[in-house]
Amino acid sequence: MKAIALPNHPGAAGKFPLVCAPLVGRDRASLLAEAASVAGRGPDLLEWRVDFFEGIGRATEVAELTGALKQAAGGLPLLFTRRSAREGGEAISLSEAQVLELYAAVCAAGQIDLIDFEMGNARQDVAAVRTMSRTHGIGLVLSFHDFQQTPAQAALVEKFALAQELGADVAKVAVMPRRMEDVLTLLGATLQASQALAIPVVSMAMGGLGATTRLCGGAFGSALTFAVGQSASAPGQMPIAGLSAALDLLRRAGGAA
Amino acid sequence: MKAIALPNHPGAAGKFPLVCAPLVGRDRASLLAEAASVAGRGPDLLEWRVDFFEGIGRATEVAELTGALKQAAGGLPLLFTRRSAREGGEAISLSEAQVLELYAAVCAAGQIDLIDFEMGNARQDVAAVRTMSRTHGIGLVLSFHDFQQTPAQAALVEKFALAQELGADVAKVAVMPRRMEDVLTLLGATLQASQALAIPVVSMAMGGLGATTRLCGGAFGSALTFAVGQSASAPGQMPIAGLSAALDLLRRAGGAA
Repeated sequence: MKAIALPNHPGAAGKFPLVCAPLVGRDRASLLAEAASVAGRGPDLLEWRVDFFEGIGRATEVAELTGALKQAAGGLPLLFTRRSAREGGEAISLSEAQVLELYAAVCAAGQIDLIDFEMGNARQDVAAVRTMSRTHGIGLVLSFHDFQQTPAQAALVEKFALAQELGADVAKVAVMPRRMEDVLTLLGATLQASQALAIPVVSMAMGGLGATTRLCGGAFGSALTFAVGQSASAPGQMPIAGLSAALDLLRRAGGAA
Repeated sequence: MKAIALPNHPGAAGKFPLVCAPLVGRDRASLLAEAASVAGRGPDLLEWRVDFFEGIGRATEVAELTGALKQAAGGLPLLFTRRSAREGGEAISLSEAQVLELYAAVCAAGQIDLIDFEMGNARQDVAAVRTMSRTHGIGLVLSFHDFQQTPAQAALVEKFALAQELGADVAKVAVMPRRMEDVLTLLGATLQASQALAIPVVSMAMGGLGATTRLCGGAFGSALTFAVGQSASAPGQMPIAGLSAALDLLRRAGGAA
C-alpha cells in the first residue's frame, strides 16, 4: 500500500485511502462557496475540476484563484484537474497548447499539491506537464478513464505501468463496469499494480455497479477515493460523511487497506 | 441476486443483503438479555449460536428457549446454528446423534426460520436435517467454513453447488484469506455461484483482510452478512449500526446488490 505524498500536508500523510471531493463550480463566487462548504464535510483533499469553470480561458485568474480556493478550503491539499472531454470532462474552448499554458501558470502559482493530466495526451504534452510540475514540487497524477467499458485486467495493469513509465507520481485508472465481473477485473488490476509499481495507484469502477470500489478500493491498494462534495463529478460517488464513516468502520475491522 | 425466503417475515423479504447478528450467550438469562439488546440495534435477523450455550445438552430447554428468544428479540427471524468445532465452533459434549435430536426438537418447536448445518457432515445426517427442516417449513442453510485458507475459486463454486445438490435452501461459504487475492477469489466464486445456482448464496472472507466482503459481498450476490451484535462470532465482523449505514450508502449509490 503506497500512500500519496503530500509533503506540505503532514496530517494527510498517514491516511489510506485519502477521501477527495471534487469542486465543479462554474464561477469564482460559487467555486469559493463550494470549497468552503465541502471542506467543512471533512475530505482529505479537494480536486478543482477546472473544466467546469467558465473562466478557464483566463490563465492568470485561474492561477490566482488556486490560492483563494486553498484559503477558502482552510488549507486543504488541492488537486488541479482539467479533465479532457475525451475522457469524460466538460467541453472547453481551449486548445491543448492553451491548456499547457494554463497548467504552467497554475504550477507556478505554487498553491496546488497535485495536478492531473491524462496519460493518453500527446507524449510531448505529458512530458511538458511532468517538467513543470516537478519544477514547482507538485505531484503528477497521470490518469486513464474509460466511460464505456472495462478493459481486460492485463490492459489495465499496463495503463498503471504506463503512468509510471511516463514519470507520474500517482497512477489513476477509472473504468465503467458493465457487469460485476468487470468490478473484479478493476480490483484485481489495482491489487496487481499496487504490488508491482513503485508509485501509489488510484482506481475506481464508476456508476452504481462500481460503487463498492469507492469504499473497498483501498483494501486492494487504491490510495484515494472520490466522494461527492456539493455535486458529484462522476457517477457512483457517495457523500463524504457516509463514505468516511464506512472507511473508518473498515479500518477498525482491519480491512480498509 | 436471489434473496433468502423468510415467508413468516414479509418485512425482511425485500432486503438485500440481510444483516444477521449472532447470539453467543452462555446461559438463558444472558442470552435473552443479549437478544433484546442486539435486536434493538436493528439487524434483520438473529443467529443463535447454540454451541456457545452451556445448556446445549438439554434439548427440551433449548427448543423452548427458541420461543423465548424470538419474543425477546421482538419477533425477528431466527437462524439456529450449532457450529461444529471442526468448522470453527465451540467444543460441545454432544454426539452427532444428540445434535440431530436437538435439531429435531428445535424444528418441531416451530419458532425458528432457518437452520444451519455443515454440508461436510455425514450425508445421512444432512439428509435427516433436510427432512426435519422441510417438515416444519424451516429453511436449511448448508454451510462450509475454512478457517485456515481460501480454496481455489472452482473448489468454492463446487461447495456452493454441493449445498444445492444436498437440498439446501441457502448455500453458505466462509473462508480465511491469507492475501487480498484470496478475497477476490471468494468474491468471484460468490458471483459465479449466485448466477449459476437456483438458491441464494451467502459468503464472507473472514478476518481483517476479508472485512470488505462483509460490506460489499451483496454486490457480488451474497444474500446475508454477519455483523457484531454484543460479541462477534467470527473475526472481521463489524457493528450492526455502522454496517447497516454503509449498506444504505451503497444502496443509494446503486451498488449494494
